[in-house]
Formats: sequence, C-alpha cells, structure tokens
Amino acid sequence: MNMTLIESTLEGDRLSLARLLTQVENDSSEGRLALAKLFRHTGQAHLIGVTGAPGTGKSSLVNQLALHYRKTDARKVAIIAVDPSSPFTGGAVLGDRVRMRDLSGDDGVFIRSMATRGSVGGLAQTTASFTTLFDAAGYGIIIIETVGAGQSEVDIARLAHTTIVVEAPGLGDEIQAIKAGILEIADVLVINKADRPGVENTERALRSTLELAHPTPRVHRHHGQAMTVDATAAAEAIWIPPINKTVATDGTGIPDLAASIAKHAEHLRLSGDWEARDRARLGSELEAAIQVELMNRFRADVPLSRFEDAVEKVVRRNLSPREAAKILLNGSGA
Amino acid sequence: MNMTLIESTLEGDRLSLARLLTQVENDSSEGRLALAKLFRHTGQAHLIGVTGAPGTGKSSLVNQLALHYRKTDARKVAIIAVDPSSPFTGGAVLGDRVRMRDLSGDDGVFIRSMATRGSVGGLAQTTASFTTLFDAAGYGIIIIETVGAGQSEVDIARLAHTTIVVEAPGLGDEIQAIKAGILEIADVLVINKADRPGVENTERALRSTLELAHPTPRVHRHHGQAMTVDATAAAEAIWIPPINKTVATDGTGIPDLAASIAKHAEHLRLSGDWEARDRARLGSELEAAIQVELMNRFRADVPLSRFEDAVEKVVRRNLSPREAAKILLNGSGA
Repeated sequence: MNMTLIESTLEGDRLSLARLLTQVENDSSEGRLALAKLFRHTGQAHLIGVTGAPGTGKSSLVNQLALHYRKTDARKVAIIAVDPSSPFTGGAVLGDRVRMRDLSGDDGVFIRSMATRGSVGGLAQTTASFTTLFDAAGYGIIIIETVGAGQSEVDIARLAHTTIVVEAPGLGDEIQAIKAGILEIADVLVINKADRPGVENTERALRSTLELAHPTPRVHRHHGQAMTVDATAAAEAIWIPPINKTVATDGTGIPDLAASIAKHAEHLRLSGDWEARDRARLGSELEAAIQVELMNRFRADVPLSRFEDAVEKVVRRNLSPREAAKILLNGSGA
Repeated sequence: MNMTLIESTLEGDRLSLARLLTQVENDSSEGRLALAKLFRHTGQAHLIGVTGAPGTGKSSLVNQLALHYRKTDARKVAIIAVDPSSPFTGGAVLGDRVRMRDLSGDDGVFIRSMATRGSVGGLAQTTASFTTLFDAAGYGIIIIETVGAGQSEVDIARLAHTTIVVEAPGLGDEIQAIKAGILEIADVLVINKADRPGVENTERALRSTLELAHPTPRVHRHHGQAMTVDATAAAEAIWIPPINKTVATDGTGIPDLAASIAKHAEHLRLSGDWEARDRARLGSELEAAIQVELMNRFRADVPLSRFEDAVEKVVRRNLSPREAAKILLNGSGA
C-alpha cells in the first residue's frame, strides 16, 4: 500500500504527495520509510529561501514569483511556508486559502504550510523532509518562505541554495537592526513595496550595510594611481548580492528578480558553491538525524522514572542539569 | 583562582559576575564548573520573559520596568537581552549603551546582551546559564527580553515564570497574525505606545483573541436559568491575562504593569504553578544537557573521517541522512 504511495508520488500524483507530506509531518513510520526510499531521487531542485520581517509582503512576492516561473519555466514549483503562528487562530490555513485563489487550477504548483508550534528543531527537520518529498516528486523549484525576524527562521532559510531577504520602506529602526543580522545571509535582496515613500532611504541603507559586509575593493590604489581590477574574474569569485525593487501586488520587478535568482544559480554552479551548499545542508541534516537517533536510544534505555528522579533532584537543587545528565548517561543510578 | 570568582560572585561582586558571564558564554571549562557550583544557590529569582514584535518598544519598557523596581523594590534586577542581530553591526552593543545611559550608576541593575549568531539551541542554553548566574548572584528579578517574532525567541521567553507580550497600535496585519501565536503564551499583555492612534482597535482585537484562547464560562446556562459561577474560586484556578496600557517613553502605566506582574507571581504561588513552571523549565534544561552530552560522546567516539564519509554518501544520495545516522551509531562502518 505504502509502496504505491511512494511510486505514485514519484510519478507526480498530487494526492499521494499530499498524503506523504502529512505522514512526514506526523513523523509516522510510513513517513520515515518514504523519506528513506525517496531520498535517492533528490538533488535536482533549486532551493530558494525567502525571508523577511513581518510587513514586507513576502507572501505576495512568493506568489508572484511562482506565477512568473509557471509562465516562463518548465519546472514545477513547490512553496513551503514556515509559519510560526498558531494553528489555533488558523493563520497558516488562511494564508493557504489566499494563495490558493491566486495559484489555483495550476497542477504545477504545490503549496504547503507548516503551522506546527513544535520545537524549533522540529520545524527545521520537517522543512528538510518536505524538501526531500517535493524534490523527489519532481518539483524543480522549491521556495521556502520564513518570517525572518527570528534566529530559527533564518537558520531554516539559510539552508537553501539561494537566500532572498525581503525588505520594505519605512519599517522602523528596530526592524533595521534585525535586518542587519539577516543581511549577512542574503544572496539576493529585494525592496518590496517599492512604490512607497522612503524607498531611496531603504536602498541607501542597504547599500551601505552591504558595503560593510562585502568590502570588495574594485579599485586598488597603488603608488597614488588607481588600478582597475579585472571585473569579470572578480564576478566569478565573489557574489555581491544585487538589490531588486519590486511591487508584488502588481508584479513590477518580478522578472528582474527571477533573473537575479537565475544568475545566482549560475554563479553557484560555476564557483562550485552549489555542491558546497548541498554538502553543508546535508551535513546539518545528518547531524540532526544523529541527535534524534541518540535521544531515541536514550529514551529506550533509560526508564522514565529514572529521568523524573533526576528532574526532581535538579528542582531541589541537589544536582545541576549538567551533573544530572552525566549521571543518567553513566548509568550509575541518578 | 576560579573558586575566588565563584565566591566573589556569590558575594555580589559585579566584576566577577561579568567575568563568569563571559566564561559561560564561551562555554569554557571554568564556566561549566562555575555553573555546577552555583546551581545550588539558585531558585530565588522571579524570571520575567518580555517578548514582542519589532517596533513595539519593548526595550524602553524593560528599562522603565527596571527603574520602577529599583525605586520600589529591594531586589536587584538583571536584564538578559536576547538579540538575534549580528555582532558585526553591533546592534546589541548599541542597545547596551542606550540602556546604560538610563540605568547607569545603579549597582543593583545588571544588563547583559547576547548577540551570538550561534544556533538556536545555543541561544536558549546560554540564556538558561545566564539565568543561573544571576539567580545565584542574588538578582531577585531577572528580565529576559526577546524579539518575539520567531519560534526560538518565543521558546526562550516561555521558560520564564511570567511571560509578558508587548503589542503596539497599528503594526499591520502580518504582525497581527504572528501575534496570535504569541498570545497563547502571554501571562500579561501590554499595549505600549498607548498614546498613539488605534489603541482602541488593538485592545479590541486583543480582547477578542483572548476570549477565544481563554473561553472561561463565567455564566452557566442550565434549564434556561443563568447561574453565576463563584468568581473568587475561578480567579484562583484560572489566570486570565490582564491587558496593561503603557507609554514607556514617559513611564505611564509602569506601576500598574508591575502590579499585574506581582499579582501573577502570587497566582503562581497559590495555584502551585510556580513550582510546575520551574519543573518544566529545569526538565527542558536537563534534556538539553543530555543532548549536548550525547553529542559530545558521539564526537569523541566517532572519528571525523567516518562522519565525513557518511556525509559524502548522503551527498551522493547513496544513503538518506537517517540511514547514515543509524549506520554511524551502530558502528558497522559507514
């Protein structure tokens, strides 16, 4: 039965894919088996992370980008929306509905939200697993959208081949400060809502921050004479994040953004960074899998009562958490 | 030498405490020893988490709250600012400077930022360790301030005894959606910048969300007759987050906020939730310590070359991350 789900997912059946996504989200044994079987069919997709502070309009931007790809590109597009808001208020579900309206009727687009309020590690792992499923199911472009105001969401976005950071004019000082941290992971910058006042200020601020982050000496001064460095060689070795201006609500600037993304993919291929990023991402996934497996083994080995005794000793301040951990793992009777 | 640092920290020496904070942040062996020694001196502090979206003015609010406590309360106040922005642009350092201006010259206040761009787990663990140091050093009030737009920051804030969620009027729809998730963890709600237009709308929206989240039937209908439930008994059992309005820039509403926090602490003590929250927090810390210890043992046991071979097999899609993890842990030669 499950083999059928796996096979039909590989053949592009949407319903089977939807079922596997749910099984994987629930971390069922069927889901885990499917991930193991499907993993060897991955490695084709371009993973694009899109992150930005609340209010930058990144969801609209992702929708427009998906529409653009569907018009100009043969590849299927998957969107994974990592939404830290609650299932209780239905934030993610509402988001899906709005999106469905724009992108409905196109079998080449698949949108999946995660509204799980689980641990951060859980979100990252589910994102990785969803990526595996979509990649195996033949989605050549996988857009991972996160709210980029928290470390966890940034961590998730940075696992992509191409990370897009979305800004908007006039979002206030505190957001600017957060942005500075996120800027470092940007491969492509977008100023969305570029029809609003203040866009020049935002662009100027981004450029000056970028210059600090990527101090590429285009001109060397030597013995008082300016010497121009070979621009072509520099472009191959170093990627300077371009700044794209868009108005997602009417589609302005979306083709240019897609061109920047394509250029970045080409840069990754030429420089060898594509494989390096894949390796880093899969290394992280392996490490996370080791952690999960170690904790599973720990839970199977150590009775819950021993763990609870240890918590009790920590609560009474007889042992520090680290001391209690060592005693539990040494099996010397906590 | 290190014993002296530990002893002088216990006696309230700020310089020793500052050094230990740095050692703990660097995860040095001295830092780990100090945490183990100091842990038994903890358990006195009231941990207050303050979280909110960018632009709500929570840093000013935390400053004002600290000033208020110092005027009206004998306890010393520590502020841990968990700042996801980059050390590169110095966001956290700048924040510290602004704060130092307001709170300088008071030996009863200690402010420490974390601008580490490490893993999320790292941030949470360092926050927990800082809390241990401040608690042992006699800081009776420890305020943990996080940017509450990400899951990780929410996770950090919810480890406190009292979690305060800060809102502000007119922050836009997307922020409202995120807020909904954060609302569930709020013990006390604050509408800061309450002198701005739109405060009534914000309050109305918060109240209706709260009613969904805390559907407390104050009136039972039975056989067509309204029966009033004993309000006093209900108040003891169930905590309904109060909504406080503040203008942090001029201190309006701060005494009322402090009163709400004190009332929540009293509720926790009476209901037994204080100990329950301590137990949950320390249980999480123990689990995190077990994970760290298991990974340390794994790294000591498995040569790096074997790990890298496994990554290579995953990159070539010969093994899925989970399969590779199992092989590595079974020691059957990856």
